[in-house]
Amino acid sequence: MSDKFNDLLNRRGFFWQSFDAYKGMVEAGGFYDYGPLGVGLKRNIINKWLRTFVVPYMDFTIEVETPIIMPRIVFEASGHLENFTDFLVTCSKCGRKYRADHLVEDELRKRGVKIKTEGLDERRLDELISQYGVKCPNCGGELGNVQRFNLLFQTTIGPYSSNLGFIRPETAQGMFIDFAKLYELSNRRLPLAVAQVGKVGRNEISPRQGLVRLREFSQMEIELFFDPLNPRCPYLDDIKDVKIRILPEDDVAKGVNAPREVSVREAVEKGYIVNEWMGFYMGLATVFLNELGVPLDKQLFLAKLPEERAHYAKAVFDQVVLTERFGWLEVSGHAYRTDYDLSRHVKYSGQDLSAYRDLQVPRIEKEIRVSPNPVKIKEKYGGDAGKIIKYIYDNPDKVLRDIESTGKSVFEAFEISREMIYISEQERKTYRERFIPHVIEPSFGVDRLLYVTLENSFVERNGKYVLRLPPDIAPIKVAVLPLIRKDPYPAIGRRIWSMLVMNGIEAVYDDGDTIGSRYVKYDEEGVPFAVTIDDKTPMDNTVTLRDRDTTSQVRVPVDSLVAVISSKLYVRH
Amino acid sequence: MSDKFNDLLNRRGFFWQSFDAYKGMVEAGGFYDYGPLGVGLKRNIINKWLRTFVVPYMDFTIEVETPIIMPRIVFEASGHLENFTDFLVTCSKCGRKYRADHLVEDELRKRGVKIKTEGLDERRLDELISQYGVKCPNCGGELGNVQRFNLLFQTTIGPYSSNLGFIRPETAQGMFIDFAKLYELSNRRLPLAVAQVGKVGRNEISPRQGLVRLREFSQMEIELFFDPLNPRCPYLDDIKDVKIRILPEDDVAKGVNAPREVSVREAVEKGYIVNEWMGFYMGLATVFLNELGVPLDKQLFLAKLPEERAHYAKAVFDQVVLTERFGWLEVSGHAYRTDYDLSRHVKYSGQDLSAYRDLQVPRIEKEIRVSPNPVKIKEKYGGDAGKIIKYIYDNPDKVLRDIESTGKSVFEAFEISREMIYISEQERKTYRERFIPHVIEPSFGVDRLLYVTLENSFVERNGKYVLRLPPDIAPIKVAVLPLIRKDPYPAIGRRIWSMLVMNGIEAVYDDGDTIGSRYVKYDEEGVPFAVTIDDKTPMDNTVTLRDRDTTSQVRVPVDSLVAVISSKLYVRH
Repeated sequence: MSDKFNDLLNRRGFFWQSFDAYKGMVEAGGFYDYGPLGVGLKRNIINKWLRTFVVPYMDFTIEVETPIIMPRIVFEASGHLENFTDFLVTCSKCGRKYRADHLVEDELRKRGVKIKTEGLDERRLDELISQYGVKCPNCGGELGNVQRFNLLFQTTIGPYSSNLGFIRPETAQGMFIDFAKLYELSNRRLPLAVAQVGKVGRNEISPRQGLVRLREFSQMEIELFFDPLNPRCPYLDDIKDVKIRILPEDDVAKGVNAPREVSVREAVEKGYIVNEWMGFYMGLATVFLNELGVPLDKQLFLAKLPEERAHYAKAVFDQVVLTERFGWLEVSGHAYRTDYDLSRHVKYSGQDLSAYRDLQVPRIEKEIRVSPNPVKIKEKYGGDAGKIIKYIYDNPDKVLRDIESTGKSVFEAFEISREMIYISEQERKTYRERFIPHVIEPSFGVDRLLYVTLENSFVERNGKYVLRLPPDIAPIKVAVLPLIRKDPYPAIGRRIWSMLVMNGIEAVYDDGDTIGSRYVKYDEEGVPFAVTIDDKTPMDNTVTLRDRDTTSQVRVPVDSLVAVISSKLYVRH
Repeated sequence: MSDKFNDLLNRRGFFWQSFDAYKGMVEAGGFYDYGPLGVGLKRNIINKWLRTFVVPYMDFTIEVETPIIMPRIVFEASGHLENFTDFLVTCSKCGRKYRADHLVEDELRKRGVKIKTEGLDERRLDELISQYGVKCPNCGGELGNVQRFNLLFQTTIGPYSSNLGFIRPETAQGMFIDFAKLYELSNRRLPLAVAQVGKVGRNEISPRQGLVRLREFSQMEIELFFDPLNPRCPYLDDIKDVKIRILPEDDVAKGVNAPREVSVREAVEKGYIVNEWMGFYMGLATVFLNELGVPLDKQLFLAKLPEERAHYAKAVFDQVVLTERFGWLEVSGHAYRTDYDLSRHVKYSGQDLSAYRDLQVPRIEKEIRVSPNPVKIKEKYGGDAGKIIKYIYDNPDKVLRDIESTGKSVFEAFEISREMIYISEQERKTYRERFIPHVIEPSFGVDRLLYVTLENSFVERNGKYVLRLPPDIAPIKVAVLPLIRKDPYPAIGRRIWSMLVMNGIEAVYDDGDTIGSRYVKYDEEGVPFAVTIDDKTPMDNTVTLRDRDTTSQVRVPVDSLVAVISSKLYVRH
């Protein structure tokens, strides 16, 4: 299949490697262009995701758009500057650079040694290189020491060269740092889901897997903020009977390979999934993939073991899809990020990113109050007392801390001692308390979803090829085809085409070539419906409507064409 | 108005300056986040642009998506590395950096000297600084020499530090370098319009104008490729009677300030607009702005004089909109880019980016043919003759050129002389010829369009505020509001809300607060319709439908609600 499938994608211009005009002149792998059909398909997949994950849940889900370029401190806080690295090894002779773990795995495989290098550190990789005498595949030279290479694209914001910025490697951080504002906008209600669709960049060392390993790609992410004391998902019922295929952490740890096929409800109840929200989104993700045309038996949620998980995650499932070309391919990740991200941003920004919960029983809190003793202050500092008093009112905590630790607090030229302040203890009833919300994150890669959708839509039929794209995501919905290119058929065809596009239905008009060749063309482009104008059309104002998948044709009055086609376009769930 | 308007945008969370959590800690102006309503409005403006400029013209218009990060050579070819600069001046004492032309203009204005600095070069700016003794506004220090600062965000692609990449400052270049492929995909037909919507970056020296001067923003661009010998636009009739307001180049040169209000047809016929395609897109752009709610008397096409135009442009109009906050603001640019871009990429890439035109009269072309003379070659080189003969067949042009200029052509150890080749002249009829297409480019800034749309939608009514957003671009279409929060009203409301969202209509459900406060809230959010569930609803299954702009209410059966609202949402043109 693969060759015929790739030929078709090329021929129809779904996507291609970028900078083709400069091929051979630039080292810029990992970038792809979408052609006309690719753009349409991508947009429709994004819209379908919004219709699945956002629109029906607008009562607790909002969408934001934050920048692609972000300042350094964001990625210091997020941990990406420290941890978002791959291993790089450089040939000391020719200077060629390689991703070390991939190089070691490939070279050892050539020697018949099968080793998984995922999770190995630089020291272990160095050892393997020296133990097996791995050399530069390009020139045979000695390899240097394995080093960490940070995958963030780095740039400079504004004219100061020290003001570093980075291209975000995930859309998530923009949603975390906005939490306080978004929580306010949502009337301080949890759970709160924040969705974002947008571009991200990862400066891969040497990407070579087409559309599935890109340096620039699009993500669709949700950060679901919830109270860890109230982790129930009230929407679980929506998808509780959805069947998912899953390899939970215990199974993976034991080396079990056979996935369990269970309902979401069961997966949550048996503890395969540790959090109801995670289960909810995994259920929706399965429905989403089903509707993109990926059969359940090619889907799997694969638990990541602790050593394979990102630095922030408490539990992670990869949603993987079995592809012909790339084997099992991750299309979404489902992570329990705990309060890691918000806590880090609180620490780095000093801003309050907490939420409130109501207390069943009001709590008595003791409050220490510090106030100035004007008499003592005037005694010592006379006319300066006023500003010292004001200083103590403005900085009670600091003054108390200083005095408790060193016996005095210094302000300008003045020393404030214990006798210059009153310390009183008050009791206060509080009806709510602050906490840092926990986060569940489903994160989808748009480009990989597009790839698996296309692969699963491809069928061969009587020596011809068809993309059976689900009608709601097909980039072109209708081809309008006059049977003959002779008056009055083209004029009628153009009128029908115009009627369709004015009603928001993506349509093309085509009167070239034989009708057979045109069917072949639009089947290859995944167009679900063809309207043919034939000799009956001028007489009774009907056309034939051909179904791409069954090739069956029915006669439809032109006046009801928009309604008939519209009713077939959208799957509801 | 401005304060009330800005308050409303803040209160409702349309957008805000990014990295607010790190405010004061990072120098990262020129980045904005879109909140929930901003994202929806932005997406709807993009969709409306597609419905206006792309979908009705799908017979010659295709859409692509190319990367944001591009390798260095693309911007060498485009001229951006050399020309895409602003003037920077640095204080020699405190190190503070300023955009030189802005600083000079501002400082001179303080001294009562009004000077326009647009178009001045660095030497003239240096002179003004020294003539007027302009000092650093921060510390009073001496300013250094004015320098050019390139506005491209620079990064590195992959692990080699010399492999520079840049964030594109316009989406255009990706469409130019793909021309050969897109021309093939479109069956080699011109005119061909290629559209792209996407993010771009411009590393402004010190952006300080909110949403209208951003370092990262979104563009919607079309590159229309046409044959310069056939510059007619067959679609001009579609918009020929559309009135536009224009200050053509001659008027601007003469200092005329009063715009002409003419039809597109007249503007083209009188030569105000030099190209029909340019007129076509300027007409569509006016319709587009009208439908976004910008009245014609706040719109203007302003010609740029040669010295104000970008390095590649033969004619340029800025489409400007009169705003309360920023004065006249450019929302789109309409440029005649000639064959500049394609020619430059041909030169830098060596690839063929030409199109073909049919010739009315076939042309006779003389062709010089070079072939080896085997007898002479064998005479001199015996057994080596075979490979020399092959070399001449493979490199006829080079051999001929060498012999004509130096009397011989050298290949390995052999010298090929005049007598070893035959030169014959042949005539060939050609029915088509190659040429580099010319380009008309309409280029829209999404963020600025969003701003002017909001500003023009804002009205005060009885001390309350309303955003009269056109229904097709309003981010939320319907608010579903039970009059009372008591059985069975909330349940009915939720059912209606669910029916609306399942039919793709963005809706919110709200049973908090008084009905009056809720109307105020959703008027401020620009929601065009409110559905109220009242005591008649449980009896006759009808609701009231309130119109945001008239505040009038009509009773509608629940069963026809989707149809009634849908019919009011989309403006056709």
